[in-house]
Amino acid sequence: MSVAVLCGGVGAARFLRALAGVHPTNDTVGIVNTGDDTVLHGLSISPDIDTITYTVAGAIDPERGWGLRDETWRAMEALARYAERRPAGSRAAPTWFNLGDQDLATHFYRTARLAEGATLTQVTAEIAAAWGLQQHLLPMSDERVSTMVGLRDEGVEVAFQEYFVQRRHSVPVSSVRFDGADSARPTRQVMAALHDASAIVVAPSNPLVSIAPIRALTGIDELLAGRREQVVAISPIVGGAALKGPADRMLVELGMEASVVGIARLYASIAATLVIDPVDAALAPQIEAAGMRVVITESVMKTADIGRELARRTLAAAGMPV
Amino acid sequence: MSVAVLCGGVGAARFLRALAGVHPTNDTVGIVNTGDDTVLHGLSISPDIDTITYTVAGAIDPERGWGLRDETWRAMEALARYAERRPAGSRAAPTWFNLGDQDLATHFYRTARLAEGATLTQVTAEIAAAWGLQQHLLPMSDERVSTMVGLRDEGVEVAFQEYFVQRRHSVPVSSVRFDGADSARPTRQVMAALHDASAIVVAPSNPLVSIAPIRALTGIDELLAGRREQVVAISPIVGGAALKGPADRMLVELGMEASVVGIARLYASIAATLVIDPVDAALAPQIEAAGMRVVITESVMKTADIGRELARRTLAAAGMPV
Repeated sequence: MSVAVLCGGVGAARFLRALAGVHPTNDTVGIVNTGDDTVLHGLSISPDIDTITYTVAGAIDPERGWGLRDETWRAMEALARYAERRPAGSRAAPTWFNLGDQDLATHFYRTARLAEGATLTQVTAEIAAAWGLQQHLLPMSDERVSTMVGLRDEGVEVAFQEYFVQRRHSVPVSSVRFDGADSARPTRQVMAALHDASAIVVAPSNPLVSIAPIRALTGIDELLAGRREQVVAISPIVGGAALKGPADRMLVELGMEASVVGIARLYASIAATLVIDPVDAALAPQIEAAGMRVVITESVMKTADIGRELARRTLAAAGMPV
Repeated sequence: MSVAVLCGGVGAARFLRALAGVHPTNDTVGIVNTGDDTVLHGLSISPDIDTITYTVAGAIDPERGWGLRDETWRAMEALARYAERRPAGSRAAPTWFNLGDQDLATHFYRTARLAEGATLTQVTAEIAAAWGLQQHLLPMSDERVSTMVGLRDEGVEVAFQEYFVQRRHSVPVSSVRFDGADSARPTRQVMAALHDASAIVVAPSNPLVSIAPIRALTGIDELLAGRREQVVAISPIVGGAALKGPADRMLVELGMEASVVGIARLYASIAATLVIDPVDAALAPQIEAAGMRVVITESVMKTADIGRELARRTLAAAGMPV
């Protein structure tokens, strides 16, 4: 009776924490987007995996929503000396991507293990275990897929973090592309988890840049479509707004609707059910018209009780006895 | 009237600082050993270059003799979580090589610039400039040379830092080898500096693992031998003991003499003069017998005055008007 969760970062992390209240953690598999992964200063950085690991471990900074609590920033502060003086054209010493001093250890370990020949799947499991996680965390692929974002006003395509962090996701986008997705495969662990799961949850993550990279891998959408009755998506759009991040603006900029109906149209082919918040109850008929069943329950996880109920209703929608 | 100094780490750094009191800093070139360079956590680390940069900048930790003052160690502390749990056979998350949080910025910058295609020569100059150095610091080569140390009791050969830091240079050595030196070339900047210098100083650094890697590069010893009258070495052995590090033990373990006479035998072919401390004055005849002239002056740089006098006497021995 395992549960597989397609995951981006913060929203997925919070859902996994909530899910732990209603389902055994060692029967839970998080399948995590790695399209945001980047290399900075020579270090291999997997932001979504780390956000989930730290959040589920209870070590995340609750204010920021990313990075470790009680963090210090001495390395980044010292980097300014070089950033201010780097030669024209150099992108060395980027100070726009904050890496906390303690957080660096995670990137050090990941980088060294990958250099030793370990797969990202292995390293992710080792890091999760080091933080005491019972859940199985799986990167979507051991091969590199890079989410590339077209910027409308600059007329250029940049790597995801250059949009999301460097430009604070405040500029309009014109395209999203998953570089490498044509040839990258999901891991066999990912395929097995999705094949075996009693319920598959699409976490309340950005559908365009967190869930879409996973779906872009060969075979994922076909597998999900074939198991559509067991797939339940939780809308990351509540009352027309993204719970976090730029999903609402991106949907509009890319010609979709920033509403639970827009989400339903994106997910109808792979998920039978969409979980929405009561504020969007009036849109249920349009979701059904788009081809999805609707579950209405509080979906903003402000309290542990709300989170647990959201998790319980989500599993029930997939036909699991909870 | 430029001065070129063949450099290891701490001893050379202190000599460069002393030299600044008697010779224009912008006419001083430090040619620095990179045989100690290593990659840890994916980061390119050049210990001797950094020790010199930080020391000349006045930013070195005066107690430790390496790393930055007012340093913190949060990243290293956090690394323990992974070091304790890494799989058998993995060498990821090495905690035996301490990297301070502020110091990390230097390795971040170097790593990123090298990844952009900059040479180590360029990056070293940029880092030195960022710290306000007027002296020109040149890595001995832009190609990789790795000092490998044979360990007598373990019967294995290890990279220099595994001997020097991991084993605290407390185990007997059976060999020293410079992997890559056959094919690595000194940079044209190094050759030009040695060619043009009015005086060439061999700093009081370990002759076997700091100076020898520079000498192992094609053409260096020939050039030095041809300019032998302008080359002055400062003995790193005083009263039979190394000022710092394991040079005295290494000399004996490798079948040489841990004395100024042993040093003279190593340097006689490339340097006309050896500077020794008054405590070794009685050995002057043996140094002369080995083929070197002797200059006797206080060589332990306990005060700025002693350092300046050492520098002045050293330049004078090369025939410079000081």
